[in-house]
Amino acid sequence: MTRIAIDAMGGDHAPHEIVAGAVWAAQEYGVAIELVGKQDRIEQELDRISNEGFYSDCGKAGKQYKLKIDTSKLDIKITHASEIIEMGEAPGQAIRKKKKSSIVLAVDAVATGSSDAVVAAGSTGAAMASSLFGLGRIPGIDRPAIAVTLPTIKKPIVVIDGGANSNCTPEMLYQFAIMGATFSKNVLGIEHPRIGVLNIGEEAGKGNELAQATYKLLEEHSGKLNFVGNIEGKEIFLSLCDVVVCDGFVGNVALKVTEGTSSMLFRMLKQEFKADLMGKIIGLLAKPFMKRIYTKINYEEFGGALLLGVKGITVISHGRSKAYAIKNAVRVAKNAVETGVNEKIAKFYEE
Amino acid sequence: MTRIAIDAMGGDHAPHEIVAGAVWAAQEYGVAIELVGKQDRIEQELDRISNEGFYSDCGKAGKQYKLKIDTSKLDIKITHASEIIEMGEAPGQAIRKKKKSSIVLAVDAVATGSSDAVVAAGSTGAAMASSLFGLGRIPGIDRPAIAVTLPTIKKPIVVIDGGANSNCTPEMLYQFAIMGATFSKNVLGIEHPRIGVLNIGEEAGKGNELAQATYKLLEEHSGKLNFVGNIEGKEIFLSLCDVVVCDGFVGNVALKVTEGTSSMLFRMLKQEFKADLMGKIIGLLAKPFMKRIYTKINYEEFGGALLLGVKGITVISHGRSKAYAIKNAVRVAKNAVETGVNEKIAKFYEE
Repeated sequence: MTRIAIDAMGGDHAPHEIVAGAVWAAQEYGVAIELVGKQDRIEQELDRISNEGFYSDCGKAGKQYKLKIDTSKLDIKITHASEIIEMGEAPGQAIRKKKKSSIVLAVDAVATGSSDAVVAAGSTGAAMASSLFGLGRIPGIDRPAIAVTLPTIKKPIVVIDGGANSNCTPEMLYQFAIMGATFSKNVLGIEHPRIGVLNIGEEAGKGNELAQATYKLLEEHSGKLNFVGNIEGKEIFLSLCDVVVCDGFVGNVALKVTEGTSSMLFRMLKQEFKADLMGKIIGLLAKPFMKRIYTKINYEEFGGALLLGVKGITVISHGRSKAYAIKNAVRVAKNAVETGVNEKIAKFYEE
Repeated sequence: MTRIAIDAMGGDHAPHEIVAGAVWAAQEYGVAIELVGKQDRIEQELDRISNEGFYSDCGKAGKQYKLKIDTSKLDIKITHASEIIEMGEAPGQAIRKKKKSSIVLAVDAVATGSSDAVVAAGSTGAAMASSLFGLGRIPGIDRPAIAVTLPTIKKPIVVIDGGANSNCTPEMLYQFAIMGATFSKNVLGIEHPRIGVLNIGEEAGKGNELAQATYKLLEEHSGKLNFVGNIEGKEIFLSLCDVVVCDGFVGNVALKVTEGTSSMLFRMLKQEFKADLMGKIIGLLAKPFMKRIYTKINYEEFGGALLLGVKGITVISHGRSKAYAIKNAVRVAKNAVETGVNEKIAKFYEE
């Protein structure tokens, strides 16, 4: 049985929503769980879910859930961690100083084989640093990167790097392309995933030095990868490629702009409907349709992004994750374990 | 009377929509117009507008317009240009080779004082290169930048650079901040505009080397500028600052992602409404509300972006601009001339 370690203390709603999401996933996906964090707090949450039940509002999608699950019937292990790494701490320093922190011990659980993957909703920097330090890099990969799955009009695409590396070289972006393609093929099931370089124009000569050099490098290696050229920001959602390659700074800006734009549009639409009585009525009628869109594009559905390039599976969840998002993050971790995405990245370099 | 030169041959819908937009602006804003391009084609379009009238569908906002304007009553001058710079051409080379091209001569019109500003919807690179070459830089500014005005929940913000410079230094971004603030204050009327650096986190140490160094530089000069720190992609639309400073690569990606995200959401919503008969009816009822949002965020309303840092006003319009967008671009040009934004940028350096 696949076992997923979860940093129970990481995230804005830790530990209650995190523990609830983990229990929910154990029940829904039939996985074993290893909850890492303050033992008494975790036990308290497990008791609550077993006895009183737990309400979650599933974040912005607005759905209400009640979880009343007999946790004694599930395969749940608790690993006590006495420390917590806070959001503001410098990641490198923090993981060296706080060896007994929940994120460090959750990664340790994967390193020692106690669990198969880790899910973390706390500091992204700390999750990356402890994964890099605790699991090590896959041979051939210089820097791990975050692979974020995004909805489009047709099928989901992968944006890599979603924010792990702010300063990149063309060689790093080439490696991101390899990792992204392997993820797209094995986890999302897309045959011959098309790789695009995020750029500000179609032509090879467009963009900054990094984008230009990456274009050349991918063109040279086009026998190994299905490189389709540059892709512009407005084309990301048109399914013109399956993997969008960029540095972590640009990738993170792009992802957050997507989030910001959709929030603004939904807010504007709500405001518009409030203008008069007729609008209010039409707004009420249109609400379920808008909600369905919201569900489609909501990060909670995707649960988390994979940190690729380390020898182990780390799923990084949004800091705002509630139980529903954590449940889905566990699903992402389970899929990554079962499809052996890391072994396949390693294999790419052996061939 | 303010006179605006217009590259009549630039853009996907040149010359017919461009000429129509220029005439429309002349009538609506009481400006004089200098149309630069193939004389016979321009005359043909002017005749059509005077006699048969001209239909424009105003791009995506979907509104239909009929323009039947007696062009002989307006102050319209034609300057013949025998050449056109095409979209694919390398800008630097093209402006040197095609000295009689419509964009080069339109910028010349400003340089010689025949017009006060230029509006261009053709190749952005060619418009920038000919402006830099034909008008020269404002002392103190190393590289001109594109200031794009974006709608937010509250008031419009300025993103600078929107795509002129893919590779930037912190000093360049500092200059963008000065230009953006001057634009925000004088053209948008925002007192003490708040400057933010586009970044992937709030803290000073976040982001790539460029963002970190720019943060420091702006902090050092905070006496002259109202610097409020880093701003994340998802916060752009929350009115947390008035000027978002970034390099042209990141800025262009961010702007195009905004465009791509809103297109996708509107498409998804339309699809959702099509699901069944009830949906179709609700969709029809909701349509005017959605259109109002579309109008608010539509680039056509903003007409064009200002190229700041050159000794003259150049407004760069979307390549897809139709008459309505061109009309609004002329308004932007007129405002920039009348508020003397360039003189005020120059003055910043004199003080």
